[in-house]
Amino acid sequence: MAKEFVKDITAMDDDFAQWYTDVVTKADLIDYSSVRGSMIIRPYGYALWENIKNELDQRIKDTGHENVYMPLFIPESLLQKEKDHIEGFAPEVAWVTHGGSEELAERLCVRPTSEVLFCEHYKNIIHSYRDLPKLYNQWANVVRWEKTTRPFLRTLEFLWQEGHTCHATDEEAHEETKQMLEVYADVCENVLAIPVVKGKKTDKEKFAGAKFTYTIESLMHDGKALQSGTSHHLGDGFAKAFGIQYLDKDGQQQYVQQTSWGFTTRIIGAMIMVHGDDRGLVIPPKAAPTQVMIIPIAQHKEGVLDFAYDLKEKLSAFARVGIDASDKKPGWKFNEHEMKGVPLRLEVGPKDIENNQVVLARRDTGEKIIVSMIELESKLTEVLDDIQRNLFERAKELREQKTYKATSFDELNEIFTNKTGFVKAMWCGDQSCEDKVKEETGATSRCIPFEQEAISNECVCCGREANQLVYWAKAY
Amino acid sequence: MAKEFVKDITAMDDDFAQWYTDVVTKADLIDYSSVRGSMIIRPYGYALWENIKNELDQRIKDTGHENVYMPLFIPESLLQKEKDHIEGFAPEVAWVTHGGSEELAERLCVRPTSEVLFCEHYKNIIHSYRDLPKLYNQWANVVRWEKTTRPFLRTLEFLWQEGHTCHATDEEAHEETKQMLEVYADVCENVLAIPVVKGKKTDKEKFAGAKFTYTIESLMHDGKALQSGTSHHLGDGFAKAFGIQYLDKDGQQQYVQQTSWGFTTRIIGAMIMVHGDDRGLVIPPKAAPTQVMIIPIAQHKEGVLDFAYDLKEKLSAFARVGIDASDKKPGWKFNEHEMKGVPLRLEVGPKDIENNQVVLARRDTGEKIIVSMIELESKLTEVLDDIQRNLFERAKELREQKTYKATSFDELNEIFTNKTGFVKAMWCGDQSCEDKVKEETGATSRCIPFEQEAISNECVCCGREANQLVYWAKAY
Repeated sequence: MAKEFVKDITAMDDDFAQWYTDVVTKADLIDYSSVRGSMIIRPYGYALWENIKNELDQRIKDTGHENVYMPLFIPESLLQKEKDHIEGFAPEVAWVTHGGSEELAERLCVRPTSEVLFCEHYKNIIHSYRDLPKLYNQWANVVRWEKTTRPFLRTLEFLWQEGHTCHATDEEAHEETKQMLEVYADVCENVLAIPVVKGKKTDKEKFAGAKFTYTIESLMHDGKALQSGTSHHLGDGFAKAFGIQYLDKDGQQQYVQQTSWGFTTRIIGAMIMVHGDDRGLVIPPKAAPTQVMIIPIAQHKEGVLDFAYDLKEKLSAFARVGIDASDKKPGWKFNEHEMKGVPLRLEVGPKDIENNQVVLARRDTGEKIIVSMIELESKLTEVLDDIQRNLFERAKELREQKTYKATSFDELNEIFTNKTGFVKAMWCGDQSCEDKVKEETGATSRCIPFEQEAISNECVCCGREANQLVYWAKAY
Repeated sequence: MAKEFVKDITAMDDDFAQWYTDVVTKADLIDYSSVRGSMIIRPYGYALWENIKNELDQRIKDTGHENVYMPLFIPESLLQKEKDHIEGFAPEVAWVTHGGSEELAERLCVRPTSEVLFCEHYKNIIHSYRDLPKLYNQWANVVRWEKTTRPFLRTLEFLWQEGHTCHATDEEAHEETKQMLEVYADVCENVLAIPVVKGKKTDKEKFAGAKFTYTIESLMHDGKALQSGTSHHLGDGFAKAFGIQYLDKDGQQQYVQQTSWGFTTRIIGAMIMVHGDDRGLVIPPKAAPTQVMIIPIAQHKEGVLDFAYDLKEKLSAFARVGIDASDKKPGWKFNEHEMKGVPLRLEVGPKDIENNQVVLARRDTGEKIIVSMIELESKLTEVLDDIQRNLFERAKELREQKTYKATSFDELNEIFTNKTGFVKAMWCGDQSCEDKVKEETGATSRCIPFEQEAISNECVCCGREANQLVYWAKAY
């Protein structure tokens, strides 16, 4: 019996990687299976993903996109149509070679992403400027043959949405690329309480086949960065490779301009590493499967359980409310739901019922508040909002503490030797400087932020003239 | 320009199979791709699936199940653990043999169904009677290497949900098997307006590895049957193969009793073939992506479009309302949305505005009703409900017309030679009789219905004593 309550986790500062593994398994988010590098997403983890998915799906639909579903398999010859794309993805795809007992004439890869499938379809359905824009999205599983994997962060198979759009002009495609990055930033900041830096990837770090890639980058508790969503302007590279043309208003054949953008289960890893603490998960209210967990105190006493269940029913109009009426001791239950990151605990026992009150305990601050029954409904909403806000502010503060500036290579190197975090530094635009930073410090360029500052006018690496500020960091 | 409006479809009675193909492609439900046997589910088709999915998902959650996500791949050794199961599925799985450029030490099959993955997980998380029942479900894509494929009906890859549960007793598992069949029947009858026959599969037709299989069977417009959802009592066969045991209240190790049940995109094929007609799709209101399509008449005249858009906004509180304000002629629009099966068309032009009325045209009966603006809201709901009811009644009537009885083999054979439909006939329970019916008539046993009738006491095939009524039919 004892086993199910022993949920000790490694302290963050002792071993952050082990802390992470402890949290994802002991908070019942995932389990391992005999499929290397794949994870089982358990009910609690999947409910979290469903909340994130619903929030994002609504925004995708509100911006005029339609959901579709493309095949899982891609014939090898189709994948090879766009040269940069196949070069980027070939080393990490899984190949189906047999169907039943027969060897296939042509291998099929399990989609690592679906650009080529969308392109083939677009060629089929786009003929005239009247057919544009085409704004499609799909929710799907994809596979990338990763050597080293970690739950949510890097898995052989993951769940995501991938948007794929076609436009008449470069400008429209550019607007779309920006718009969808803003949608991702909105979900990160306002649902998951994860502050992000918005910017552009360098050419070296952009998507295979893209003209350019926009990204949102977030900073984990250990000071490492995590790419949290990307939006690509594909230009007309795929359109030319696949022959996706439309007749414009003047009767001229034009190639379409395309975008693609993706957001994955990886974000759950970010949420864990941004908000979690030594007691386990901390889930922002807007994403939490259970926002308020009612723990009856002395539940064997007459009236307590009835009262608690009534309360659950009443409060369910205002929040996602659970009740733990199991026969475990209250202390065990407190630990359990703290571990699972439930934003708010509501304790109610005989004395509280007598005094017409309950106790609210915040997961983020540990603060306990006695609330009278009369003001409970309004207080509940207020406190949940405040937790959401506080988590975002706290994460932003931590990120600011861990954001440094460097104006010379020595300074940059010293920061990455002694500290972890974002380093803002100027860059000349030359890939050899980017390579050198990576080789000598282990840090990569995260993005060229939209919000530029001129912290110097020399490249942090080569000292030549530089007018672009770059965020650098070691990254997941 | 003309091309996009030419949506002629083959008449049902001329060539039902071609009618079906015409409808799925011309109503923009699907498109083909270079991936053999797979389909692209287009926005209209996917919106339909999302509606069905949401209705079913809500019912699955309301009956206490939790969603999870299992890996796409199954190692060959894991698939082989349950003997009957692997025998049933091995001939139709796709095999991944390479990851990137490396050959795998063990082949991975792309899941055709996920029993073995759930079993492996259950062995890991079930220890005590306190851990039961486990009521899990997943929404996923699965692959079966079919030789001959048709959109929705039989595809290499399809979307579905698969429920997998563990129980302490055989009775509980049996209750669950029945409950989930009732849930499927509810979705078919009350969302999709498809009447179903509920019953049990014969041993020959049951799921590979199951103790028994419950099924709902529906009848298409051409008189062929379609298996529309199945629920399996797995007994303890998988539990024994995987060692899934729990400690009961008396401290004894017991094997769990399991169920699994699935409902797929195939049901869209059933919906098409039950309700469709020579003008195209007919979608029941509860499943329809657009329930009411507003067509402005003489939309170039002042005030018409504004009025139509206002109407759309107002009515959107009561129904899923679309508006077609494209520059096509109203007649083209009528055809277009009839083809797409929109349940109700709302026409509004200058004269209607003057008279403070609109025209409603029903897709199911073709009836046109003039409705005054004052009663529009209530009338709209009323008519949609009536269409939903009418479609179900109509389908039920057709099924009854096409349901026959046979008390001798000659009679059975004659029916299947001259007609199509369900044939009710007694069966002795011997598989050789079942085989003979199939060989000589092409019909298979669809189910042993829960509602039994004793139409004779002799087996329709061998004449021996028989006390089970069976529904026989040629089937998709």
